[in-house]
Amino acid sequence: MGLLDYFRSNQPKSSANVAKERLQILVAHDRATRGQPSYLPQLQQEILAVIRKYVDVDLDAVSVNYEQEDSREILELNIVLPDVPSAPRI
Amino acid sequence: MGLLDYFRSNQPKSSANVAKERLQILVAHDRATRGQPSYLPQLQQEILAVIRKYVDVDLDAVSVNYEQEDSREILELNIVLPDVPSAPRI
Repeated sequence: MGLLDYFRSNQPKSSANVAKERLQILVAHDRATRGQPSYLPQLQQEILAVIRKYVDVDLDAVSVNYEQEDSREILELNIVLPDVPSAPRI
Repeated sequence: MGLLDYFRSNQPKSSANVAKERLQILVAHDRATRGQPSYLPQLQQEILAVIRKYVDVDLDAVSVNYEQEDSREILELNIVLPDVPSAPRI
C-alpha cells in the first residue's frame, strides 16, 4: 500500500505530454538470514525474458540498479518501451 | 533512483527482529496511448511462475494489488516466503 502511495505522490498525473511507454519493475527482498547467495540477478534475467514475450523491448532500453544493504536487496529495472502506433495499421 | 530512496526512508534498517523472508515486486506501466488491453495480469502470472523456480512459495502467501488510473497501471505483489533454516540440515 505504501508503494502505491509513493507512486501517486511522486509521479505527475498528466504524463500525456511525455507520451513515452515505460515499464518500471522493482523487486525488494528482505532476507531472514544473511550470507545466502542472492538469486535476484538471475531473477532479473528471467523477468526480462518474460517481459519480452509481451513487448518488443531492446535490452539497450533497460537500465538496472541493484543495491544490497544488510538483509535487504533491491533490484530496479527501468524500461523505455518502443513507441506504439495509436491505431492499428491497415 | 527515487524508488530506492523510498525504500531507504520507509523501511526500518533493523528488520532482524522481524526475521521474515519477504519478497515485494512492483510493476508500473506508463502507457503512451489509452485504451490498450493490459498485459499486467498475465505478466503477474508469469512473474510468479519465475519466482517459484527460485523459492518454494505457496500461492496463499501472495497478496496482489492492481490499480489503474489514467495512463498508469500499478501491479504490486507481496510475498511472504517460507522460513528457511539458518544452517543446512545434515
